[in-house]
Amino acid sequence: MQIQTTKPQQFINITHLVADEVRKSNIKDGIAVVFVPHTTAGVTINENADPDVVCDMLYILDKSFPENDRNYRHFEGNSHAHIKASLMGSSVTVIVKNGRLMLGRWQGIYFCEFDGPRSREFYVKVTEG
Amino acid sequence: MQIQTTKPQQFINITHLVADEVRKSNIKDGIAVVFVPHTTAGVTINENADPDVVCDMLYILDKSFPENDRNYRHFEGNSHAHIKASLMGSSVTVIVKNGRLMLGRWQGIYFCEFDGPRSREFYVKVTEG
Amino acid sequence: MQIQTTKPQQFINITHLVADEVRKSNIKDGIAVVFVPHTTAGVTINENADPDVVCDMLYILDKSFPENDRNYRHFEGNSHAHIKASLMGSSVTVIVKNGRLMLGRWQGIYFCEFDGPRSREFYVKVTEG
Repeated sequence: MQIQTTKPQQFINITHLVADEVRKSNIKDGIAVVFVPHTTAGVTINENADPDVVCDMLYILDKSFPENDRNYRHFEGNSHAHIKASLMGSSVTVIVKNGRLMLGRWQGIYFCEFDGPRSREFYVKVTEG
Repeated sequence: MQIQTTKPQQFINITHLVADEVRKSNIKDGIAVVFVPHTTAGVTINENADPDVVCDMLYILDKSFPENDRNYRHFEGNSHAHIKASLMGSSVTVIVKNGRLMLGRWQGIYFCEFDGPRSREFYVKVTEG
Repeated sequence: MQIQTTKPQQFINITHLVADEVRKSNIKDGIAVVFVPHTTAGVTINENADPDVVCDMLYILDKSFPENDRNYRHFEGNSHAHIKASLMGSSVTVIVKNGRLMLGRWQGIYFCEFDGPRSREFYVKVTEG
């Protein structure tokens, strides 16, 4: 699926898009894997209610892993985005039951942009079992 | 499965509970997914021998992502717990072979509480294949 | 699969080894799980082009989670390696389509050594679906 990010660093709630893919798969029980094929973006699960939460998460990640550090060697100057992508991870796995994602009440699935804005994509694979 | 945490921040070894679910599933070969439906708790795999290891892990996470930071905006004041949950992750995946979790000798599966004590839960899904 | 690390901290690209296992499995569609059965090593997905990226990632992890901290209690003195292993994670999950790993163009799968050099291993499980 395609997604357009609009800021340098941004968490975008993609839960409804993932849920749509689960519905289309017609699979009632199994697992859903959301995979991000980029190296400066990732995916994570966190609070879907107060938007200040993901704002604080971006802030604290940036405090520990700042954009600029004189010891970075990578010529593109976005090493901070690469480490943040690995810290959040390139995939999340959610259990599917009765055709629905078994997320907790406050959980949402977030696409994590760390070097935007860019056109991005993510894959959703639902397996039965 | 239900679990009661007893401290604000705590790693609880749940390996035996996950192994029980694998046994009950009667699935001999496949994968087991452990999923935590909370946004201030996570799950990880680490050393099961010396309890000082998980103690040090909690200490170093708290040093980098402290409970208090004057720039946090989230009204509940537990942003540190949200970022720690995403850093550890909301799920772990373990290979199942001959009906057993293929963990390394020193590995245990830990429920990671970052905003306790609370009544918590986690899901275990075993798929064949 | 066996792997020999050669430095105290090192990211080793194992993408081709994982792809070989997918081929051998003869599974065309499903998911591949790469699992590391150690507690001071992990696995992650990141850039496969400029080797400075993983060098910067090791540097920034070490800056935030240094080898030495006078508050560490674990007698082996390698707590930094345990937290780094959990931050990268003990497994990655990649979608398999038409018999191939659905990785992005710049993505590689890296074995992450944090307490080497050592003889290590990792497991690859491919499930159909």
